[in-house]
Amino acid sequence: MKELMRFGVSISSGLLDKFDELIEAKGYVNRSEAIRDLIRDYLVEHEWEKDAETMGSVTLVYDHHMRELTESLTALQHDFHSSVISSMHVHVDEHNCLEVIVIRGKGSKVKEIADRLISTKGVKHGKLTMTTTGKGLV
Amino acid sequence: MKELMRFGVSISSGLLDKFDELIEAKGYVNRSEAIRDLIRDYLVEHEWEKDAETMGSVTLVYDHHMRELTESLTALQHDFHSSVISSMHVHVDEHNCLEVIVIRGKGSKVKEIADRLISTKGVKHGKLTMTTTGKGLV
Amino acid sequence: MKELMRFGVSISSGLLDKFDELIEAKGYVNRSEAIRDLIRDYLVEHEWEKDAETMGSVTLVYDHHMRELTESLTALQHDFHSSVISSMHVHVDEHNCLEVIVIRGKGSKVKEIADRLISTKGVKHGKLTMTTTGKGLV
Amino acid sequence: MKELMRFGVSISSGLLDKFDELIEAKGYVNRSEAIRDLIRDYLVEHEWEKDAETMGSVTLVYDHHMRELTESLTALQHDFHSSVISSMHVHVDEHNCLEVIVIRGKGSKVKEIADRLISTKGVKHGKLTMTTTGKGLV
Repeated sequence: MKELMRFGVSISSGLLDKFDELIEAKGYVNRSEAIRDLIRDYLVEHEWEKDAETMGSVTLVYDHHMRELTESLTALQHDFHSSVISSMHVHVDEHNCLEVIVIRGKGSKVKEIADRLISTKGVKHGKLTMTTTGKGLV
Repeated sequence: MKELMRFGVSISSGLLDKFDELIEAKGYVNRSEAIRDLIRDYLVEHEWEKDAETMGSVTLVYDHHMRELTESLTALQHDFHSSVISSMHVHVDEHNCLEVIVIRGKGSKVKEIADRLISTKGVKHGKLTMTTTGKGLV
Repeated sequence: MKELMRFGVSISSGLLDKFDELIEAKGYVNRSEAIRDLIRDYLVEHEWEKDAETMGSVTLVYDHHMRELTESLTALQHDFHSSVISSMHVHVDEHNCLEVIVIRGKGSKVKEIADRLISTKGVKHGKLTMTTTGKGLV
Repeated sequence: MKELMRFGVSISSGLLDKFDELIEAKGYVNRSEAIRDLIRDYLVEHEWEKDAETMGSVTLVYDHHMRELTESLTALQHDFHSSVISSMHVHVDEHNCLEVIVIRGKGSKVKEIADRLISTKGVKHGKLTMTTTGKGLV
């Protein structure tokens, strides 16, 4: 499964120069690593399009003084406990919290849970990041 | 400038199989073409981040019965005539039109013109597509 | 169907001030127009999620000197003539062209045609803009 | 600062019906909450465009068996300790980990740190979520 292969890419020198410049600025150590990242990102996008088993993280910003809010968010996460894996809480200032919730399941299910969390009254900003379980993306 | 180069990419067989399957489904004839597309897309994204000379297309949907609207959109395009290159008009049904306007300039200027077009009263839906002049992306 | 309604939005003065400032900068003439645009954009996003009848525009940048390319793109558009509505061609410089192709159909069909156009050998950059027929978005 | 205001939105009954249907499906309890979310999302997008003080979360998926990788990621986070606020680690399976790192700073700085984390050799998938400190978004 993890057998290492090598394939060649034909490309004009002009395009290659621009690519090398950009990946160096981004911090890549070599071309293969950058190309593999582009490939994996393209595959993950497709994973979500075909509604496969995947993972997502939801980032929420809210005012923790709205007490029922914290309870609502916790209750919601428990309702979906088989999909909600973990969460992290960051204190931004005396009012604002940032919470990240990691969810696993079919893409459509992850989106549904994200919608419910983001639409909860009092959440100021919420966003779903579509990532992957990493399986098969070696 | 157009000298052809070739570089090798190390990759696991598992990842390569998935990539081959996806690009075949998308219609690519070979890997090099797909990889070059991923590279160019990555470069174009960066072009916009650094506010370079570039091109964009704005797609608008509106009801042409709102007569002042057509005039407003035309006037706006003339105000920015040095940046607005061309436009196309499609009749969707008896009410709705779809118009595409091609704009050239620094990214921030293209965004400003797009904002003005999209915010015009009566436009139902508007979106900016960030593309490129293609220079140097051979 | 076009009966005009009015509903009230509760909002803090701080949030409203920021919103007013931003929509003025974007060029909106009043709040209702800006709110309706946010609502329509949200609905269009959903239209694509549920694979409804919709419209898209594909923006391609390519070098017209690759003669077979122009023919391939034209042939492709004819293959899907029941979905491809119209196209516009812009001469960017002596090498580069920008072409916009307007497509109508179910979201998944529009995406398939866009994939085929974008993956055509020689196309430097291609992007699908997901818009709408405008039906029901009055 | 938190004085509550109310403003009216003119809208066709057809558009309002569609909006009501969608926000109910998404889980919103009332229109005001949904509208405020659309407004805040629009403001956060602008925060990032003008490179203001903001927050972001970076979601990474990687194989923890690549030992130097964990060390590299930790070292990177320490290099930017004044911006990196917190991180969470989730065990996906025997190979894969998902890590979320919360970063605070000017948008361009958050992007730079995200680029460095995502480009680290061995990271399979990485994505930056652009959110906010929540200040002024009451």
